[in-house]
Amino acid sequence: MIDVAVLGATGYTALELIKILLRHPEANVVVATSRQDGQPPISTVHPSLVNRLDIPLEDLDPQQVAARAQCVFSCLPHTASASIVPSLLEAGATVIDFSADYRLDDAATYLEWYGLEHCDASRLGQVAYGLPELFRPLVAQAKLVANPGCYSTSAILPLAPLAKAGLIELDDIIVDSKSGVSGAGRSPKLMTHFPECNESLSAYNVGRHRHTPEIEQIIARHAGARPEVIFTPQLAPMDRGILSTIYARPTRPVTEAEVAAVLREAYRGERFVRIVDHLPATKDTVDTNFCDITVRIVRGRILLISCLDNLVKGAAGAAVQNFNCVFGLPETTGLL
Amino acid sequence: MIDVAVLGATGYTALELIKILLRHPEANVVVATSRQDGQPPISTVHPSLVNRLDIPLEDLDPQQVAARAQCVFSCLPHTASASIVPSLLEAGATVIDFSADYRLDDAATYLEWYGLEHCDASRLGQVAYGLPELFRPLVAQAKLVANPGCYSTSAILPLAPLAKAGLIELDDIIVDSKSGVSGAGRSPKLMTHFPECNESLSAYNVGRHRHTPEIEQIIARHAGARPEVIFTPQLAPMDRGILSTIYARPTRPVTEAEVAAVLREAYRGERFVRIVDHLPATKDTVDTNFCDITVRIVRGRILLISCLDNLVKGAAGAAVQNFNCVFGLPETTGLL
Amino acid sequence: MIDVAVLGATGYTALELIKILLRHPEANVVVATSRQDGQPPISTVHPSLVNRLDIPLEDLDPQQVAARAQCVFSCLPHTASASIVPSLLEAGATVIDFSADYRLDDAATYLEWYGLEHCDASRLGQVAYGLPELFRPLVAQAKLVANPGCYSTSAILPLAPLAKAGLIELDDIIVDSKSGVSGAGRSPKLMTHFPECNESLSAYNVGRHRHTPEIEQIIARHAGARPEVIFTPQLAPMDRGILSTIYARPTRPVTEAEVAAVLREAYRGERFVRIVDHLPATKDTVDTNFCDITVRIVRGRILLISCLDNLVKGAAGAAVQNFNCVFGLPETTGLL
Amino acid sequence: MIDVAVLGATGYTALELIKILLRHPEANVVVATSRQDGQPPISTVHPSLVNRLDIPLEDLDPQQVAARAQCVFSCLPHTASASIVPSLLEAGATVIDFSADYRLDDAATYLEWYGLEHCDASRLGQVAYGLPELFRPLVAQAKLVANPGCYSTSAILPLAPLAKAGLIELDDIIVDSKSGVSGAGRSPKLMTHFPECNESLSAYNVGRHRHTPEIEQIIARHAGARPEVIFTPQLAPMDRGILSTIYARPTRPVTEAEVAAVLREAYRGERFVRIVDHLPATKDTVDTNFCDITVRIVRGRILLISCLDNLVKGAAGAAVQNFNCVFGLPETTGLL
Repeated sequence: MIDVAVLGATGYTALELIKILLRHPEANVVVATSRQDGQPPISTVHPSLVNRLDIPLEDLDPQQVAARAQCVFSCLPHTASASIVPSLLEAGATVIDFSADYRLDDAATYLEWYGLEHCDASRLGQVAYGLPELFRPLVAQAKLVANPGCYSTSAILPLAPLAKAGLIELDDIIVDSKSGVSGAGRSPKLMTHFPECNESLSAYNVGRHRHTPEIEQIIARHAGARPEVIFTPQLAPMDRGILSTIYARPTRPVTEAEVAAVLREAYRGERFVRIVDHLPATKDTVDTNFCDITVRIVRGRILLISCLDNLVKGAAGAAVQNFNCVFGLPETTGLL
Repeated sequence: MIDVAVLGATGYTALELIKILLRHPEANVVVATSRQDGQPPISTVHPSLVNRLDIPLEDLDPQQVAARAQCVFSCLPHTASASIVPSLLEAGATVIDFSADYRLDDAATYLEWYGLEHCDASRLGQVAYGLPELFRPLVAQAKLVANPGCYSTSAILPLAPLAKAGLIELDDIIVDSKSGVSGAGRSPKLMTHFPECNESLSAYNVGRHRHTPEIEQIIARHAGARPEVIFTPQLAPMDRGILSTIYARPTRPVTEAEVAAVLREAYRGERFVRIVDHLPATKDTVDTNFCDITVRIVRGRILLISCLDNLVKGAAGAAVQNFNCVFGLPETTGLL
Repeated sequence: MIDVAVLGATGYTALELIKILLRHPEANVVVATSRQDGQPPISTVHPSLVNRLDIPLEDLDPQQVAARAQCVFSCLPHTASASIVPSLLEAGATVIDFSADYRLDDAATYLEWYGLEHCDASRLGQVAYGLPELFRPLVAQAKLVANPGCYSTSAILPLAPLAKAGLIELDDIIVDSKSGVSGAGRSPKLMTHFPECNESLSAYNVGRHRHTPEIEQIIARHAGARPEVIFTPQLAPMDRGILSTIYARPTRPVTEAEVAAVLREAYRGERFVRIVDHLPATKDTVDTNFCDITVRIVRGRILLISCLDNLVKGAAGAAVQNFNCVFGLPETTGLL
Repeated sequence: MIDVAVLGATGYTALELIKILLRHPEANVVVATSRQDGQPPISTVHPSLVNRLDIPLEDLDPQQVAARAQCVFSCLPHTASASIVPSLLEAGATVIDFSADYRLDDAATYLEWYGLEHCDASRLGQVAYGLPELFRPLVAQAKLVANPGCYSTSAILPLAPLAKAGLIELDDIIVDSKSGVSGAGRSPKLMTHFPECNESLSAYNVGRHRHTPEIEQIIARHAGARPEVIFTPQLAPMDRGILSTIYARPTRPVTEAEVAAVLREAYRGERFVRIVDHLPATKDTVDTNFCDITVRIVRGRILLISCLDNLVKGAAGAAVQNFNCVFGLPETTGLL
C-alpha cells in the first residue's frame, strides 16, 4: 500500500483523482491540501465524498507532505507547482505534477508561452513526460512526472506515430479541438457561467493556447524536426470530453488502411488507446482512461479523430497510469 | 413612440427586455445604465446586440434618466431600486421595477424576508402588482409597477382563481418549482458554474425563498384570507423555463373539468394564459410571454402544472405587457 | 469467481451493469443476450466496451443461459422477464430481475397497473424486494430478487423509516420526482428526442406511473397499513439522476433533528445511504451507488429530499449490491 | 398582406418559419400541410402554437395549395420537394424551397451526392440560390428560390468574398463545423436520442456530407474555378447553432486587418452579416438571423470563425429574408 498526497484538492482534477484512487487497491489517500480555514473535512468541498474519504483539507508545507506520503500528486496551478516540487523531491517524495511547469523542455519556451521566468529551470529537459504509451521507460524510472495537458494527449497520441513514420508534413498540421467545460477548472468565471456557455459553442485562445508548444515538442521528438501546429481550442456545452479533429497532409498518397495500420502497430498491446473503425463519440470514453482514435482520408488529406475524457485520460487517469508505471504496478490497476 | 430607459442593463432580464423592445413598434430604447468605465457600447457586454442597439452604457442619476425617458425599466437589484425609484417618480417618469422592492404590501414583511428596513416604506401597499391578468385596472393607471417574481407568476396564475372561488384549502398548498439557471442572474457563482449545475438537479432556499410571501400576499387578496404556502425552488440544468407543480387540497370533491372550467373562465380573453389539456413542457413557452397551465386530480388532490419562461412571462415579457397596459397600447404589442 | 449472464444487454441498465461487473473482483460476465442477427460482438452495440468486454450478443434459451451462468441478471422488459424467469430458476440459476414483474405482491395489483394477467402469478408475494437496507435477510437467501424501480428507491428509502416509526400520516404523502432521460430507456421516441426534451422540463404519467403501487406496497410493510401516495414523475434535461422532493404530514409536531435522527438510526452502518445536512444535488451521487437524503421542516410539514443515480442505485448498482448479498460477498464489493 | 403556405409543417424548420411569419406584418399563414389523419389543428403537433396559429394540418395537392397561397414555403425533404415544385410554379405560386433539390446546378452532381436521378433536372442551373447577400438581384426576380443548407451558409458567407478577391488557395480549404441537434430533424433516431448525443461530441458523414458540393459550387461562382473543400460536420449537445472553423491558405501573406477589411467591404450595408473582432459564440446569434464572422491569422493560415442559428439564418430566417426580397419588402421585415 502506497500512501499518497493530493495537493490542491479542491478542483475537478483532484476530485477525479481521488475517486480513482479510492478504487485503487495499492493507493491510500492520506493527505489532501488546500488553503482553507480550520481544516474542514474534504467532503465539505466535495459532497460526493461523504462516507468515502474522511480526511481534512490541510495547509501543509512540502516537508510535512513528504513525511506522510511516498507519492505526491500536485494539482496546483502552474508556478505554484514549480515553487514546491523541488522541496518535495528533496524530501524524498515521488511527484506527479498536473501543472504545465515541467512539461516543456526549456525555460525560453516556458517564458514565451507562460510569460514567466521558470523558478526551477535547471530541471527542464530532464523530466519524464507522462504518456507511458510513448515514454514508458522514462516514466518507469522517474521521480518527477509531468502529467500531459488534456488537449495535448488528444493530439499527440494520433499524431506521434505518423510523425515518426514520416507520413505527415510537419508544417501542415491542424488540430481543431472541442472540450467540455470542466477543462476550464472550478473557479467561477463569466465564460463558464452556465447561462453563458450552455447551449453555445465558441473558440477561445485561438493561436495562443499553451498546449501548442507542448504538442509541438512531443511531435518533434518523434519526427526529428519541429512541426508547426495550428491548434484551435473550442468550448462545448458538456461537462467532460475532448474531441480533436486533426487534419494532416500526407508526405505521399496513403490509404486509410495504411494509416490505421501504423497506429495499430504503434499501440499494439496498449490497453488505453483504441484504434477504431467507427467515428468515435466523446461519450464512448467518458469516465474511462481510454483514448479512441480513427482515421479517414478526405480529398487526399489525413483526418484523425480522437476522443478522451479530459479529466481521466486527459488528467487524473493518466496520472494514476503514471503512478502505476513508476511504482511497478500493472499499468491498468484501478483504471478498468 | 415612447422613449424608454433600462437601468442595470448588463444582466439577463435587461438583455431580454431590450430584445423585446427592439421589436416593439412604440418603444425606443434611448438610455441604458450601468456602472462601467468609459461608457462602452452596450454590445461590448451583450455581443448579441451588435448591429441591433448602438447606445452606450452610462452611469446616470435619476434626473438625467427621467429627462431622457418617459418610462424607466429598473433591472437593478432590490434596495438599489428603492433608493432610486422615488427620484424617478418625482422627476415624472413612469417606472416598471423588476426588483422585489415594491412587490410586498408592508415593510414588516419586507424586513422579515429581506432582512432590511425598506427605504421607501410609505409607498408600500399602493403599488400596482404587475399581473394585468389579475390587476389590469390598477396597472393601467399606475406610475409605478412592481413586476412580479418569476416563480410567483407561475404559482399565482393557477392558484388565484381557485382561491377566489373558494375551491382550495388555504393551509395546504405546496408549490414545487424547478427553474432554469438564468433565474439566478449573471454574476458567476460556484452554484451556477457550468460543471456544478449542469447534469444536476438540486433544491435551494427550501422554506425560505423570498417569493413565498409574494405568492401568499397575492393569493390572500383573492381568497380573503392569508394562505400558508410551502414553496420549494429547485435548479434545473437548462437556460430558461419554470415548471411549477402545485398540490392543493380541494374544499370539496371536484373534477378536473370543473377546476379547468374555473381557470378557463378566469382567463377568458387573456392572450397570455393558456389553459391546456395536455401536460405542458417548459419548452412550449420558451421565448414567449405565455404561461401554460393544466389541471389533474390525483387521489382527490388538485394538481396544477404551470410553465413559463422565467425571462419573458417571468420578467421582461411581463414588464412589456405592463408597459403596454400603462401606456394604453394593445397589451400584446411586441409580445407575439 | 461467479459466472454471470446479462439478458437484454443492449439497453442502458445493462451497459451500466456490465461496467460495474467489469470492476467486480468476483463476477465474470460470460453471457450477454439480445435478439440480433449473427451474434455481433457486444461492442458493436456499446462502443464504450471495445477492449473491455469481448463477448457476442447471443439469442439463447433459458436452459442455455443457466448452463453457463450461476447468476442471471435480467434486463428484459416486464412480461418478457416473467416468461423466462421460471425456467431459469428451474434450471438452477439465481436471478436478479430488473423488470417490474416480481416487485408487486399480488396479481390483481399487477393487472390494475400493467393491464396484463401475470404469467407467473403464483410466485408473487414470495420474492425478495431488492433493497438490502430494508430486507437484507430476505435478499440474502433469495434465488430470485426483484430489483426495485428507480423512482421507488428514491421514495422508499426516506419514507420507510418514518412510516415504521409512525411519524407520518399515511394518507398525505406527495412524492414529486424528477428524473434524467436515461430512465426512459434506449428506444428512440419523440419525447426523448434531443431537441424535444433538451432545455425543457415536463411531467408525464401524472397519477398513473407504475412505480406508485410499488412505493405504496413497501411503505405499507413498514407502516402496517396501506398509504396513499401522490407520485408525480417529471423529465429533466440530463442523462442521469433522480431528485425526489417528498412532502409528508407528521402525526405530531417534529423537529428536523428528530426526523434526521430516525433516519440516521435506521441506516446506521449502511454504506450506501447518506443522511446529510446540506441540500444534496443529484450530481453528488452520479456514477455511485449512494442515495443522499436530507430533511427539512417547512411550515410544520416534513420535507424529505433524496437523490440517487437512476442507473446505479436505481438499477445496476442495486442489482450488484443484491448479487453481493445473495452470494455472501461484502455488500460494497465492486461498488465503491 | 401576402397569403403563404407551409408544406411539411411538422418539423423544426417549419415551426421556426411559422413563428417568424406570425411576427411578420405582411405575411399571413393560411395553409399548413402534412399527411395526418383527420386534419388536426397544427397546435396538436406544435403545442407552442396554441392560441397563436389556429389552422389545421391538411393533406393538399399543389393546385389546392397554389389556389390559396401566393407564396409556398416547402419544408418537404429532398425529392419530395422536386416532385411537387413544378406544379406549384405552374399554378402561379412563388416557391421558397428548403430542400436540397434546387441548390445544385446540375443533375450529375445531384446524382453523385444524393444517389438519385433528379425528377425536375431541366430547371437546375436556373434557380436562385437564396443568399441575398451574394445573389440579391437573382433572388429579387425569382419565382423559385433554393434556400441554402445551414452548414453551407456558415461556410459560404466567410469564404466567398475571399475567394472572389483571390486571397485563398482553392485547393486547401478546410471547414470544420459543429451543429446543434435540431439540424438533424424531428424524426427520432438513435443518434439523436437524448442519452446518446447529450454530453457528447462526434463527427458524422466525414468527407461525404451533402452540403459539400453546395459549398464548392457557390465558392466556384465567386472564384471562377472549382475549389476542393474538406468539410467535417460534427454533432454538438445543444438545440441550435452552428460554429464553423475554417482554415484557408492565403495566396500571399496577409494580415488579419486586411482580410477583415475585405469581408467588411463585401458585407457593407448587409444587416445580417456581422464582421466582428471578438471570437463569436453561437449563442450570440441564436434566435436571430445574424451570421457572425471573425478572422484570425495563425502561423500564416487564415482562420475564419462563423456562427449562426441553423434554424434561422440557416433555414427559416433565410427563407423569410428571401421572401422579403422576392416580394419587394424591406429585407429585414419580421427578422429583427
